[in-house]
Amino acid sequence: METQNTHSSWFTEHATDIGTAFSLATSTLLHQEKTAYQNIEIYKTKTFGNLMVLDGFIMLTTRDNFLYHEMMSHPALFSHAHPKHIAIVGGGDCGTLQQVAQHNWVEKITQIEIDEHVTRLSEQYFPELCTSNNDPRVKFVFSDGIDWMRHAAKNSIDIIIVDSTDPIGPAEGLFQKQFYQHCWSALSENGLVIQQSESPLAHWESITKPMHNEMQAAGFNQTKTLFFPQPVYPTGWWSATMAAKNDIHLIRDSDAKQLTFDTKYYNYDIHLSAFAMPNFLKA
Amino acid sequence: METQNTHSSWFTEHATDIGTAFSLATSTLLHQEKTAYQNIEIYKTKTFGNLMVLDGFIMLTTRDNFLYHEMMSHPALFSHAHPKHIAIVGGGDCGTLQQVAQHNWVEKITQIEIDEHVTRLSEQYFPELCTSNNDPRVKFVFSDGIDWMRHAAKNSIDIIIVDSTDPIGPAEGLFQKQFYQHCWSALSENGLVIQQSESPLAHWESITKPMHNEMQAAGFNQTKTLFFPQPVYPTGWWSATMAAKNDIHLIRDSDAKQLTFDTKYYNYDIHLSAFAMPNFLKA
Repeated sequence: METQNTHSSWFTEHATDIGTAFSLATSTLLHQEKTAYQNIEIYKTKTFGNLMVLDGFIMLTTRDNFLYHEMMSHPALFSHAHPKHIAIVGGGDCGTLQQVAQHNWVEKITQIEIDEHVTRLSEQYFPELCTSNNDPRVKFVFSDGIDWMRHAAKNSIDIIIVDSTDPIGPAEGLFQKQFYQHCWSALSENGLVIQQSESPLAHWESITKPMHNEMQAAGFNQTKTLFFPQPVYPTGWWSATMAAKNDIHLIRDSDAKQLTFDTKYYNYDIHLSAFAMPNFLKA
Repeated sequence: METQNTHSSWFTEHATDIGTAFSLATSTLLHQEKTAYQNIEIYKTKTFGNLMVLDGFIMLTTRDNFLYHEMMSHPALFSHAHPKHIAIVGGGDCGTLQQVAQHNWVEKITQIEIDEHVTRLSEQYFPELCTSNNDPRVKFVFSDGIDWMRHAAKNSIDIIIVDSTDPIGPAEGLFQKQFYQHCWSALSENGLVIQQSESPLAHWESITKPMHNEMQAAGFNQTKTLFFPQPVYPTGWWSATMAAKNDIHLIRDSDAKQLTFDTKYYNYDIHLSAFAMPNFLKA
């Protein structure tokens, strides 16, 4: 039963370094364009809603993006005593922004996405993720996040969420010490960074572990990785890594226990459980 | 970037009901045979070690089977005060059996696998999973597990592990009330069943939830599902469901904290975390 798949209605992402491929059954190519930064494709899939692809890599689908977006936001937001200003680097689809905006005590959300086309297409094809785009607390900056962070005012941000593509090409600098130093400087006293950190099975040694080292070298006192399922990403198992000026713990546990908004994946038990480290990653 | 993949060195499993496909880069077809029960294929993959496929469905790979096998065994074994006799229904690759055999206080392991060819091929192509096959505590029975359970002596088994294929074809009866009634009868006073229960994202309503109902209808007092990553199964996110005559909790927590054997995934924190229920499954 080897593949002889020439059926034109599958979108396939080959993860050649991992030796795997993942396909979604699609019915229509809704949009395709080459921007100054990347090739963007939007498909209608048969069972996962709409699909956004950047340079051949699956970014999100309607059906399962909640896993990633909830875990990129709520664990960090509830690990800070008074998160007032949140900066999102990347995150052009606005799914993370929407989760952050559910936290009423947040006063300001600045999103620095390099490619405005991603946001405009998300408004069109993922409108359910863009319901907070006109929230008066939200400020969109369409420019390079690395450069923006270099010039950010000191002590001006409480949480930085790095919701980027893989560390190849333009996003590579987002995984390096110099960027983390600028984050450290821009963060307030108890500030936190949370950043997507790839697959625990496939990228731990090559990406996630080096991230911990770079974050610590930049001055962060504690770093921790949390884990969650993400079916449309390679291996279906994903991670995010937090870095804290002080320490990382669920400081507002009563708020996490009694959520004032709806979530599909996140809750108090999921928060605590997400930090459980598999033995093979402790070695 | 639609698929035009006619490269002969990918094995692809199409999960047409879910609208996804998963592929592994392969280098050699090591073995293929049609037994009385199924079509068995063994491939050498480029990055996941060897791969066993039954009737077109991926069963296991060398690289990531530890996730499934550890989570099908240790959570149940540590949730029983004195597990002496363990029965494994299915489990022909012997990976679950090997994990069970690491528990020194287990006196007897009976494995009821319908297709002896699966076990013999596992001994050849997954020898690292078969290191306990000659353990004097292990008894192999190559016959139908549903029928075997119907005739099992009352109160003779402490834990039943149902390590089967999907609930279509011969394994369908393993997901039904009558089988669970026979399990209930064969189990000792504080007996437990643990059974693979498919993908939380794709099969919760169609398979996992009905399993809970069937288990409870068969007389089990408590049922709980635990979750774990399994990259080579559809959606990369899998589950196992436990049913207890009494209740389900980590009764031997000190043993789980101080493991006397090596694991790659399982540990005390992972055990507790695996039971965290995502919000969308609570609804």
